[in-house]
Amino acid sequence: MRILLTNDDGIRAPGIQSLWDTLKDIADIVVAAPAQQQSATGHSITVYHPIWVNVHEFDDARVNGWRIGGTPADSVKIALDTLMVEKPDLVVSGINHGPNLGTDVLYSGTVSAAVEGAMHGIPAIAISLATDGDPDFCPAAAFCRQLVQQIIAGDFPKFSLLNVNVPPVAATEIQGIAITKLGSIEYENAFDKRVDPRGRTYYWMAGTPMETLNASDTDVAAIRANQISLTPVHFDLTDYTLFESLQQWETQHRSK
Amino acid sequence: MRILLTNDDGIRAPGIQSLWDTLKDIADIVVAAPAQQQSATGHSITVYHPIWVNVHEFDDARVNGWRIGGTPADSVKIALDTLMVEKPDLVVSGINHGPNLGTDVLYSGTVSAAVEGAMHGIPAIAISLATDGDPDFCPAAAFCRQLVQQIIAGDFPKFSLLNVNVPPVAATEIQGIAITKLGSIEYENAFDKRVDPRGRTYYWMAGTPMETLNASDTDVAAIRANQISLTPVHFDLTDYTLFESLQQWETQHRSK
Repeated sequence: MRILLTNDDGIRAPGIQSLWDTLKDIADIVVAAPAQQQSATGHSITVYHPIWVNVHEFDDARVNGWRIGGTPADSVKIALDTLMVEKPDLVVSGINHGPNLGTDVLYSGTVSAAVEGAMHGIPAIAISLATDGDPDFCPAAAFCRQLVQQIIAGDFPKFSLLNVNVPPVAATEIQGIAITKLGSIEYENAFDKRVDPRGRTYYWMAGTPMETLNASDTDVAAIRANQISLTPVHFDLTDYTLFESLQQWETQHRSK
Repeated sequence: MRILLTNDDGIRAPGIQSLWDTLKDIADIVVAAPAQQQSATGHSITVYHPIWVNVHEFDDARVNGWRIGGTPADSVKIALDTLMVEKPDLVVSGINHGPNLGTDVLYSGTVSAAVEGAMHGIPAIAISLATDGDPDFCPAAAFCRQLVQQIIAGDFPKFSLLNVNVPPVAATEIQGIAITKLGSIEYENAFDKRVDPRGRTYYWMAGTPMETLNASDTDVAAIRANQISLTPVHFDLTDYTLFESLQQWETQHRSK
């Protein structure tokens, strides 16, 4: 088994290191991860600048790969299209330091990297530790190892991915696994208005998550209940319900 | 009627100017657009740097707004959350110079800006002129004006948006309007491998679109047939089909 690892916190982040430490005895590990912090870059790709690729020296001979001067989506794209001679069986993106829940997944470099894998027809996992505080990646890495084995053993559909969020508690305190839908995250006071040392106004994206109502089958609710949240994610943005009604609208419009 | 205009080619691009020229007699025009070219930034947002906001001087007194030192998604977010006292009735993003079709919409700053509007519960249009050659934005702008009036007159659903692509032909040559699904775009030779003046290897994202099969009801097929393509887009990435089967998988797993 060959696994392509990536993330959006950068190749030197402890979250991705915990993944290769945990997975290297069950798979060949190839890493293609951003050289620098790339959080909140969404599905951004680099088209107007060169992308630098450097072989990265790992402390472990069982881990190989590259440091990519680009975004998470760039990293997966260039690894799959160009750098890797033999394609991976699985793409794993993470472990992100911080949650990737609900509508926030649209902004997530971690999830977008996994989407890029799924777009190439390779099963993918995005995994995040749902805390902004001091992280202990061990429970999340152990769960990821188990999930990888399940996915490889089963017939996980191509062109889809799993978005996994792990609560920031000890393994013994995790209240099981929940298969979830993406919930809703809303922020108040989204921007801080500030003044620079020269008297010029600028803004900084801030935002406090509001206590939004989230149904019990959402990822947001699962994390609040200290469950591991597993959300199946696709990337077909067509709104099929609206597609039907617009076709009627268009037909009426023409018949006028 | 109040319309928020944005784009990803930057506030000085002719595509957005053609929109305010065409729409300013049917609506109050507020512009919040990136100071610089932001193509392919996807749903990237700026969280680690300040965002500069400057009042932009327009040649036309009926147009007002700001130049945003950030991404398209930043521009809509900061306009709706902070800058605009009265919220708009509609967000229009474009006119992009270049197509935004099929799976490429995931990378699109133009579409992501419209998604940001829909996330705020405001109807939104993303509009692109499907050519990389010399653009004539007039037919697309004229169609956009007509569509804006239809949307305002009708009861367009909140939390959805329309992704519009206009073929690069004269108005008389447009073969009608097609309500479409997102098709598939695949590239070959996605990365150019090059050597810099100091002998170091770098890559540049390139790619030639392949002649992929696309069903007649897709946006890709519509543009090939010189039709205006209108795709309803949503932003709920939950894969509901996989959600059902994973719940069964999880239940079986527990019962073992």
